[in-house]
Amino acid sequence: MANGNNPSFTRAAIIGPGLVGASLALAMRQGGLAKTLVGFDKNADVAQRAKALGVIDAAAPDFAAAVAGADLIVLSTPVGAIEELCRQVDAHGVPGALVIDVGSVKGAIAKAAATVREDLYFVPCHPVAGTEQSGPEAGFATLFEDRWCILTPLARDDAAYKAAIEKARALWAAVGAHVETMDADHHDIALAVTSHLPHLIAFTLVGAADDVESVSHGEVIKYSAGGFRDFTRIAASDPVMWRDVFLANKEAVLEVLGRFSEELAVLQRAIRWGDGPALHEAFARGRTLRRAIVDAGQETAAPNFGRDDKGH
Amino acid sequence: MANGNNPSFTRAAIIGPGLVGASLALAMRQGGLAKTLVGFDKNADVAQRAKALGVIDAAAPDFAAAVAGADLIVLSTPVGAIEELCRQVDAHGVPGALVIDVGSVKGAIAKAAATVREDLYFVPCHPVAGTEQSGPEAGFATLFEDRWCILTPLARDDAAYKAAIEKARALWAAVGAHVETMDADHHDIALAVTSHLPHLIAFTLVGAADDVESVSHGEVIKYSAGGFRDFTRIAASDPVMWRDVFLANKEAVLEVLGRFSEELAVLQRAIRWGDGPALHEAFARGRTLRRAIVDAGQETAAPNFGRDDKGH
Repeated sequence: MANGNNPSFTRAAIIGPGLVGASLALAMRQGGLAKTLVGFDKNADVAQRAKALGVIDAAAPDFAAAVAGADLIVLSTPVGAIEELCRQVDAHGVPGALVIDVGSVKGAIAKAAATVREDLYFVPCHPVAGTEQSGPEAGFATLFEDRWCILTPLARDDAAYKAAIEKARALWAAVGAHVETMDADHHDIALAVTSHLPHLIAFTLVGAADDVESVSHGEVIKYSAGGFRDFTRIAASDPVMWRDVFLANKEAVLEVLGRFSEELAVLQRAIRWGDGPALHEAFARGRTLRRAIVDAGQETAAPNFGRDDKGH
Repeated sequence: MANGNNPSFTRAAIIGPGLVGASLALAMRQGGLAKTLVGFDKNADVAQRAKALGVIDAAAPDFAAAVAGADLIVLSTPVGAIEELCRQVDAHGVPGALVIDVGSVKGAIAKAAATVREDLYFVPCHPVAGTEQSGPEAGFATLFEDRWCILTPLARDDAAYKAAIEKARALWAAVGAHVETMDADHHDIALAVTSHLPHLIAFTLVGAADDVESVSHGEVIKYSAGGFRDFTRIAASDPVMWRDVFLANKEAVLEVLGRFSEELAVLQRAIRWGDGPALHEAFARGRTLRRAIVDAGQETAAPNFGRDDKGH
């Protein structure tokens, strides 16, 4: 991943070294992008585990100690924690530091980031990558490879901020991501479609399956290979992270949820009326879209996601 | 897979050697369960391809030729074709033959199967296994291993029919499946929950994502790793097969869809009102259920379904 244009940091502070923070730390370590990596988590055990795993060099006792001397501050926590963290960044950050986050919602982050002192350069970021697992143990250095990272820079046009945007871009490129820039509102609607709504639907389906009294829990599990199990992967994602996403991106989620409900009503009516041609037409769209996602390198072409390696 | 209790057929007729039919043929061949495997498809090219792939020994020119001398007839077509095929089985089947299907809906199949002569033994079957791919090329011998196969026997209590049920059970066990028996109505509601509703929701989400004008098709593809891509696997399934499932299992699907819509309305209201605790509680159910599915051997524990083998 490393090349001559890679950014280099003296000290990177990873605030919240969970799945995403730990993965970024590991990728930065692999790429030689920081001399020292320090971690802090409000749950001290998380930072200690990250240190024991070699994700970070040191676990700081508090936020101030973590960011002391840091020229890169990574806020990799649920979105709901960012407002308070911005106050702490404002209080303790070293002038000139680049501040990034990894949150799945950007409008709310932009508002919080705008409260931070101007001698700190907060570039909101969203690496569209993750797994259903959590914690530093779940981190791995290649998480961002060939995934997209979206930057939603603040409305600042000073040269130092522009240089900070370039540095953030170079950091994500150095860990293998494709980097895109857009405004926060557009990000929030685009991700409501490709990430937030899918998670909401998956959580809903899991809840609904548990609620049909005539079908036992054991049957749901046994016959899950009929399709249900695919939904449980993203429904197993961190509930705190996702609670915060829906609280912070309410308008966009409700908007795309309205589209989903309309589409569902159309298919429901087609089923009720026995309208085979309408169902066939709607169902045929899936193959085309999946092929495009596979062709774009965002999905595996192997059947069943390649999860069954037997027999192929 | 083979053992002393394996059934043995002289001639098996595979009607519709697509993903499931071809997989069963390959598994039977591997287990030495049939002396000869003959295939027929209304699309002659499919049977020719199955023969070229070594899935079947011979491609029959018509249905009557396929089932001539067959002591096992496998109807592995979309559910909508079964009624007509039952007429053909009735007309051309050899007395004493075991007839099975592999359809995802069983109430409608049971009605059609009951029209077949009583000297033919039709045991409706549903192997809960598949991939998003279609055609004989997609078949593989281990498709049914550790998956469940549900038998929904007809209301016949003659000894010959009971022996046929046991033979069907032994066939599925011999190709690696766990076998369960239940009545057709219960099957149809259980599978509406674990298979039909998930597919309907996945098709709906794919349609809805394509319909949000402010988010481009390219963006849906690029940022699909945020969760959307998980839905596209099952939304890429055969549209004809799924059209038939929804036409044939209307009542059960509409029933569980009602539960889904209720659950979705509850979460929608929680988002609108900013009710964090309600969202958290709903979202926390996913991890428990997924763990149970993994523990039951119906899913991989690897992050991202194991589809990203890099970095782990």
